[in-house]
Amino acid sequence: MKVVLAYSGGLDTTVLLTWLQEKYDAEVICYCSNVGQEEELDGLEQKALKHGAVKCYVDDVQEEFAADYIYPIMQANAIYEGTYLLGTSIARPLIAKRMIDIANAEGAEAICHGATGKGNDQVRFELTAYALKPDIKVIAPWRMPADFPFEGRSDMIKYLEEKGIPTTVSASKPYSMDRNMLHISFEGGILEDPWNEPDENMWCMTKPLSQAADTPETIEVSFEKGIPVAVNGETLSPAALLKKLNAIGCEHGVGRIDIVENRFTGMKDRGVYETPGGTILHHAHRALESICMDRETMHLRDGFIPKYAELVYNGFWFAPEREMLQAAITKSQETVTGDVRVKLFKGGVHVCGRRSPYSLYSPKLVSFDEAGGYDQSDATGFIKLNALRLRVLATMKNG
Amino acid sequence: MKVVLAYSGGLDTTVLLTWLQEKYDAEVICYCSNVGQEEELDGLEQKALKHGAVKCYVDDVQEEFAADYIYPIMQANAIYEGTYLLGTSIARPLIAKRMIDIANAEGAEAICHGATGKGNDQVRFELTAYALKPDIKVIAPWRMPADFPFEGRSDMIKYLEEKGIPTTVSASKPYSMDRNMLHISFEGGILEDPWNEPDENMWCMTKPLSQAADTPETIEVSFEKGIPVAVNGETLSPAALLKKLNAIGCEHGVGRIDIVENRFTGMKDRGVYETPGGTILHHAHRALESICMDRETMHLRDGFIPKYAELVYNGFWFAPEREMLQAAITKSQETVTGDVRVKLFKGGVHVCGRRSPYSLYSPKLVSFDEAGGYDQSDATGFIKLNALRLRVLATMKNG
Amino acid sequence: MKVVLAYSGGLDTTVLLTWLQEKYDAEVICYCSNVGQEEELDGLEQKALKHGAVKCYVDDVQEEFAADYIYPIMQANAIYEGTYLLGTSIARPLIAKRMIDIANAEGAEAICHGATGKGNDQVRFELTAYALKPDIKVIAPWRMPADFPFEGRSDMIKYLEEKGIPTTVSASKPYSMDRNMLHISFEGGILEDPWNEPDENMWCMTKPLSQAADTPETIEVSFEKGIPVAVNGETLSPAALLKKLNAIGCEHGVGRIDIVENRFTGMKDRGVYETPGGTILHHAHRALESICMDRETMHLRDGFIPKYAELVYNGFWFAPEREMLQAAITKSQETVTGDVRVKLFKGGVHVCGRRSPYSLYSPKLVSFDEAGGYDQSDATGFIKLNALRLRVLATMKNG
Amino acid sequence: MKVVLAYSGGLDTTVLLTWLQEKYDAEVICYCSNVGQEEELDGLEQKALKHGAVKCYVDDVQEEFAADYIYPIMQANAIYEGTYLLGTSIARPLIAKRMIDIANAEGAEAICHGATGKGNDQVRFELTAYALKPDIKVIAPWRMPADFPFEGRSDMIKYLEEKGIPTTVSASKPYSMDRNMLHISFEGGILEDPWNEPDENMWCMTKPLSQAADTPETIEVSFEKGIPVAVNGETLSPAALLKKLNAIGCEHGVGRIDIVENRFTGMKDRGVYETPGGTILHHAHRALESICMDRETMHLRDGFIPKYAELVYNGFWFAPEREMLQAAITKSQETVTGDVRVKLFKGGVHVCGRRSPYSLYSPKLVSFDEAGGYDQSDATGFIKLNALRLRVLATMKNG
Repeated sequence: MKVVLAYSGGLDTTVLLTWLQEKYDAEVICYCSNVGQEEELDGLEQKALKHGAVKCYVDDVQEEFAADYIYPIMQANAIYEGTYLLGTSIARPLIAKRMIDIANAEGAEAICHGATGKGNDQVRFELTAYALKPDIKVIAPWRMPADFPFEGRSDMIKYLEEKGIPTTVSASKPYSMDRNMLHISFEGGILEDPWNEPDENMWCMTKPLSQAADTPETIEVSFEKGIPVAVNGETLSPAALLKKLNAIGCEHGVGRIDIVENRFTGMKDRGVYETPGGTILHHAHRALESICMDRETMHLRDGFIPKYAELVYNGFWFAPEREMLQAAITKSQETVTGDVRVKLFKGGVHVCGRRSPYSLYSPKLVSFDEAGGYDQSDATGFIKLNALRLRVLATMKNG
Repeated sequence: MKVVLAYSGGLDTTVLLTWLQEKYDAEVICYCSNVGQEEELDGLEQKALKHGAVKCYVDDVQEEFAADYIYPIMQANAIYEGTYLLGTSIARPLIAKRMIDIANAEGAEAICHGATGKGNDQVRFELTAYALKPDIKVIAPWRMPADFPFEGRSDMIKYLEEKGIPTTVSASKPYSMDRNMLHISFEGGILEDPWNEPDENMWCMTKPLSQAADTPETIEVSFEKGIPVAVNGETLSPAALLKKLNAIGCEHGVGRIDIVENRFTGMKDRGVYETPGGTILHHAHRALESICMDRETMHLRDGFIPKYAELVYNGFWFAPEREMLQAAITKSQETVTGDVRVKLFKGGVHVCGRRSPYSLYSPKLVSFDEAGGYDQSDATGFIKLNALRLRVLATMKNG
Repeated sequence: MKVVLAYSGGLDTTVLLTWLQEKYDAEVICYCSNVGQEEELDGLEQKALKHGAVKCYVDDVQEEFAADYIYPIMQANAIYEGTYLLGTSIARPLIAKRMIDIANAEGAEAICHGATGKGNDQVRFELTAYALKPDIKVIAPWRMPADFPFEGRSDMIKYLEEKGIPTTVSASKPYSMDRNMLHISFEGGILEDPWNEPDENMWCMTKPLSQAADTPETIEVSFEKGIPVAVNGETLSPAALLKKLNAIGCEHGVGRIDIVENRFTGMKDRGVYETPGGTILHHAHRALESICMDRETMHLRDGFIPKYAELVYNGFWFAPEREMLQAAITKSQETVTGDVRVKLFKGGVHVCGRRSPYSLYSPKLVSFDEAGGYDQSDATGFIKLNALRLRVLATMKNG
Repeated sequence: MKVVLAYSGGLDTTVLLTWLQEKYDAEVICYCSNVGQEEELDGLEQKALKHGAVKCYVDDVQEEFAADYIYPIMQANAIYEGTYLLGTSIARPLIAKRMIDIANAEGAEAICHGATGKGNDQVRFELTAYALKPDIKVIAPWRMPADFPFEGRSDMIKYLEEKGIPTTVSASKPYSMDRNMLHISFEGGILEDPWNEPDENMWCMTKPLSQAADTPETIEVSFEKGIPVAVNGETLSPAALLKKLNAIGCEHGVGRIDIVENRFTGMKDRGVYETPGGTILHHAHRALESICMDRETMHLRDGFIPKYAELVYNGFWFAPEREMLQAAITKSQETVTGDVRVKLFKGGVHVCGRRSPYSLYSPKLVSFDEAGGYDQSDATGFIKLNALRLRVLATMKNG
């Protein structure tokens, strides 16, 4: 059997690499994608091969990740439960898609991942895998307690030692982390009491507010059709732009959230996230829409956001209903082109200017002093007809 | 003819008071509500009577405003176009309702207001008036250019002088303001270019970020059924609680926004708002819901928010569709009871703790280490059945 | 172990009764509800006791079924995928609720049902059971192939013969049926090709169109707050009213549908249904709403129907999101009181009259000839303001 | 001044033609579109020119009407207030668009129509006109009582006689009619009491049920991407196909409805409609979707229908929000290709078969007897995880 393994070189996936060979006598093809997690990927291939992998792909998908996954959800202003910018959720379909590409290329019949049976990531990986290759076999060892009898990190360390693969990792971690270009997440461990605040030293992609710059910084972000293309006038590639905004946002402590969210598996989970660049883009994009997007289009689209975000969160990226909504989103972004000025300070993103060649804002129309082609007396009929049904209702109620 | 006039004692409504007598030979009953606008209302009655009013009501509705208007929209997390907390919108139905109460009590056949023919407020006033008293006559002089031939403030000053009512107000204002307990708004004038940032000296209810406290402040807000009832353990009346949070928020520069919004009358308008207490409550309420509210209830309710906010913004408060939605909102808040800890700093509201006797969060369920009654292998079937339609679709597409 | 078994006395549940005793050494309490399935329930208790049940409840819940389950979904105009009136779906929560009531009363720790692992009914039963008694154990033998090794009816007949329980049922059935007061359903077997039409002799609750009455029949149905209360002026109990309409509808071949629907388990299924009385009520209720319900309330509520129907179909009756929506529905029905005249003929339900003390329809308002308090020139301003954003958009596009 | 007049040659528009010349000294260009109203259009040009028009366009837009207006709304299953297939609504934007085309070609600065100030049609005409040519002047004489002082038909007849244009029309009409290829509508007059049934002799496009064929007729309709392309295997042009179905539907009395609907202008209106071909297509299209469309796509789309239908009804065809929704609809129809068999009888449309090369229905999957790659035990985990939040909620409530 050939298996494609989602591999990071860490404790869990090193155990999986060994266990797959042992349990299934499998030829294991390791796969590691660079989604901007800022980990050392040099030497990963050698490590995988040394531990028995028949092949190891290290795959830089950063530009694809930004262009085809992150920016489309930003066009939709996707936000889960009013707060979460979907940083982890949106990476999973890309990783699973690449694993399926490799399974097809290599003739593998199965994929394996190290996500637990309680979380969302298993769902996101597997829905993508099944949607792209309906006959794929998925091996999720954490859901196979009889075959994969590990209860924690110390078990795994002992197992590797028995196989002659000594590790230097610690037997416990204070929390679990996941990082990519869009964000870093922290879950579990000491975060499990939602009444407790995390320690300042946990945070990673952003400076603590106490150390954030004492001077506000104003930047300008430019968009074309809802996609960010330049910062301060400098055109950048999708990934480079996001990284630039991450660096700027970091200095100002932008993009931290601490929430309790609802997992697709049915439980509530406390998650702490840093999304510096994404938070800047979210606010800037909405501000640009405010002058370029028609009112009714916006209100209708705003009604889609909870559903769209739920689909992304739950792992339904390669799903026809997400694609149907995306078609509407794409249509809505045709004129979302222009510049937004935002001021960053002590964790805040403050919009302070927006302009666009497609602006629908008219100072003349809105001015107290100028008519701008607007006849105020038209408002009388507008109100009268809007009130008609309310008057009929009141008349009926009053008998 | 008897007319109830929305009266503030300012330039516009002083003109209206005189003009109504002149134009209609009307008996004018002045009405001024105290919705927390923090203006001097002493002497207002005398002023109105002196200028010809037959009566003047000065009406303290602050507690009613907080309890029956502001807090219900906060239960709904109402936010217009993703940004605006509806501070002006929500005051209008209360004011109009009181004017109709007085019209009924006094036997008046008309009401009069000084809102312009371009804005939302005329709509909000009049929809409420018509919904409560379908045969009311509404006099909106700004929509009557033939009868009310004023082009600006200097015209009005001159008119009053001619009537022997000299004023000391200036002939121009840099922008228009409206304040109540929930917020202050700034529109028009020098704000009309959405690429320009307002001056620091315009702001009123919040300290500039450069002067905000250098030390974060952590406070605890307590809710019962989605309604805020205490701050830092001290139980407060609805209005007192909001004022207390306004004072705290002010120190930390909390609740400023600068947006372009879509008016119901069809144009885009730039609005700048300060909502210190309301912003704190908005974040705290969402955080409490995150542990007390069921996932599907929340997602469904989140889908209502744009429509609900649109109804409030457009003035459909006393409308059956708003009441229908409110019935659902009220139902959803039955267990939204508990405490939230938020840290305020330099314009930011950072949730850092939430607890509730009705919490649905279970550390055991979510823990990496404990089962908590959850069988991880159940996730396999869950994913398989969720994936089934995607697999059938892929199989069909693959032929 | 004590188990409450959903028992009908048919082949499947007779096998389950025996098997539960054998497999678990269980004390089995049989439960059979009368939801109007028109089967012979006399002798059922004796039969159950004879085959080893320790107790057998035969429970007439017809009035509760109509009043608390069927009519609330009719108030909502619930219709699944545009066609299905949810006849089977709505019976399941009631049956499961009663089983849990009995489990609580009898101190049983488990319930058992004979629904298959492919269908919706297992989900509906179990979601209700878990929602009402979270620690209940559910035994679903058809999902336990190792323990319950039956492949079909002939296996089961043989098993019973071995246990000394001879049956007279046939080894194969052309399709599966489920009946209650609201409808009868047919699935499976010869219906599995969706290009084939079912035979005329399959139908059960309605006369074939070829034999339906040759003369139309006009009846009058009266509602109070959206609940049907009388037919042709005769006040009837909830169940009696529905049965009366079933009898009338039968004569006219009303309420047949033949559809392919999407199951919650992920597959598409062909279902054929007869819902004579429910179909009449559905049309009559909508017609009454057309004169009693405010426009915006109706449009908003219409947007809820797909979600509401999905919740009922999927089994989320005792779920907070359904209860939240129901609160809105209940609110919307306050004035849905009045009479509707419908003509029944050859399968059709033709609304031909509606009247209500709460009617919002005004002949004067709508008349071509009368003003009715409506000033036609108001429409100009109404249109102008509604067109404003479109004109601004066109002006921008035209450059 | 040049004016394009929507002209039919009937009483009202003959008056308008004369009045426009008299009142504005206008050069009037008459416009009449053939949208399948089955009226005699021969001689219309001569008539217009004789009465003073400078030009008269008679424009056959039947194919465009079917292909670009009717079928897109059928792809969306658009239905207003659960009953109305939008037959009048969808013709208005096309007619107004053509008038604007002609205004542009002829250099006209105004358009004129004869719709009343109470109805929807004025809104539909004018929203389209303003959306396509924002500076167009609209003349709506019925909203200009001072200038257009006609109270009814006898006034108009007298006016024409005075101008030397004798007519032979009657001074009163029992109701108002509007016909096009999709439907005919009846409103007003004797229909104004919603408790009264219309006379059988009013109906026009369908045979009375008492005279409908005594033998059912089964036909097959074929679709490509949600668009009907063939009837009984015969490929037809868009308009020819609809006309063929109208003829078939007529024989069987298909497509009559009698409703009270909510106008955009705020009042309720009783409308009676015949839509024979459209009703057949509506049912056939839904039936085809039932096997070709993914479940979640369908449920999400079903949630759009009330809004989409409202937009079409209210006249927002050339509006960005309609176009955004249409983009989603188009995406959803990619695989809605196949055949549907429907049986027509005595007013009923009974779906009895559907097939598609893109069918997602799998008899194996759904079969009681076959596994079809489905493991029934997966349902256990599926239910358990779906129930988890309900169990946590119940546990909390039970304390």
